[in-house]
Amino acid sequence: MITSTGNAQVKELVRLMKKRKARDEAGVFLVEGPRMTGELLEDPEWRGQIEKVWMSESYARRHESGANAGEKATALPDGCRTELLSDAVFSHVSDTKTPQGILAVVRRREYSMQDVLGEDPGKALVAVLDNLQDPGNMGTIFRTAEAAGATGILMSSDCVDIYNPKVVRSTMGALLRMPFLCEDDLPAALEDLKKAGIRVYAAHLEGKEFYDREDYRRGTAFLIGNEGNGLREETARTADCMIRIPMEGKAESLNAAVAASILMYEASRQRRN
Amino acid sequence: MITSTGNAQVKELVRLMKKRKARDEAGVFLVEGPRMTGELLEDPEWRGQIEKVWMSESYARRHESGANAGEKATALPDGCRTELLSDAVFSHVSDTKTPQGILAVVRRREYSMQDVLGEDPGKALVAVLDNLQDPGNMGTIFRTAEAAGATGILMSSDCVDIYNPKVVRSTMGALLRMPFLCEDDLPAALEDLKKAGIRVYAAHLEGKEFYDREDYRRGTAFLIGNEGNGLREETARTADCMIRIPMEGKAESLNAAVAASILMYEASRQRRN
Repeated sequence: MITSTGNAQVKELVRLMKKRKARDEAGVFLVEGPRMTGELLEDPEWRGQIEKVWMSESYARRHESGANAGEKATALPDGCRTELLSDAVFSHVSDTKTPQGILAVVRRREYSMQDVLGEDPGKALVAVLDNLQDPGNMGTIFRTAEAAGATGILMSSDCVDIYNPKVVRSTMGALLRMPFLCEDDLPAALEDLKKAGIRVYAAHLEGKEFYDREDYRRGTAFLIGNEGNGLREETARTADCMIRIPMEGKAESLNAAVAASILMYEASRQRRN
Repeated sequence: MITSTGNAQVKELVRLMKKRKARDEAGVFLVEGPRMTGELLEDPEWRGQIEKVWMSESYARRHESGANAGEKATALPDGCRTELLSDAVFSHVSDTKTPQGILAVVRRREYSMQDVLGEDPGKALVAVLDNLQDPGNMGTIFRTAEAAGATGILMSSDCVDIYNPKVVRSTMGALLRMPFLCEDDLPAALEDLKKAGIRVYAAHLEGKEFYDREDYRRGTAFLIGNEGNGLREETARTADCMIRIPMEGKAESLNAAVAASILMYEASRQRRN
């Protein structure tokens, strides 16, 4: 058991938690808590991606004795390395205020455009995020996209890091289930989408069409812009259609995750009806 | 100009910023930034509610010289007390990381059920919040409610403090424009709503009806529950109808503000079409 925050492995783990650069270079991300770690372990596609599982002393003890009947005792994969930390060291590493005692270092998976569009591009539903900066918004969009039946997410590479621990947490597991691509050249990727027959809609304050007057039953992508500045001109320009969510009162804009949710659920509604 | 954080007035201001109890006892709330303060000053209903305006030295200097042409120079009301703080003391008081140099202490306004329902209860659209705890969610719901054309908001008195500075900020001004009531006995208030002819819908994971199959063109109220636990049994019981937002994939729930937004915008969509 490691009992010192000065330990080299612990220092490296803290770097992975705190620094995007460290995560990018190692090609990994961190998953905290028994729920999302359990999901990794139960999913054959993710199980083999786990590099190491870290547990706090008291989590390991509870787990061993089976004292906590509420916690699922999923076996770790063969050859999965685990490491014990004292509770104090685990708290030092954890990104949460009340650490739950287990976290996993996981190798990233790579998705293709085909993954993002799903089996039938004619039924694709894609959220496209242009320079989105708020971790909570990013996580909420992943979570809502899955619930609304989106096939995947495209984002510009200058969005908030999808592997930021706060983003990972706020996706409520959707990060593990929703295919996504980070694009250095988002407008070029959007041209590829259009060639695949996907119709691209830009949510824009100056959009002419009300969002609920369009037909989203075919392959559809929604462009969602930055929280303060909206869509960049070069991104908005690629859209087939500029749509607007009508606003009453003196409201000047909607939260980016709210706008994305309203659009994705309008597509979901049309596809059900 | 006050240059010490030990000043009694500054200490009192910090208490108002940080403590719900202090705000409740004084019957006031704090508004930060030139934008929302400007809105207070321009609204005849709010103008007279301002107790005092606090400015940082550099904000006052910019304002005086008119150097910053982008800032609207709205005159303070007659008799409005102002106080200057050194920039360091202003930063000490401010709730934001990059203080904008102006804040106002404002007496609260009281709304009636009639204000919340609007002129014609047959067209009321009310969001009802049961033990909502996240400041960001509360602010986002106010902001979206205004945009969706809601007439007002009802909340249980154990929700996060609506006058919490983070909530005030995240309403983006909607707090100043959206009538609301805090209720110690929310189920009783809901019975009053129903007597006024408002149909009450509970968003519930176990709801039988898809939310988009109901008619929200008449007086409508949506019950939104706590982030982790959903609606309390005694609140859900008052509903005329339990509705469900369908979810695909393994998503288990939606963010509370997202759920409220989807419902309010479905009502808005039906009322436009």
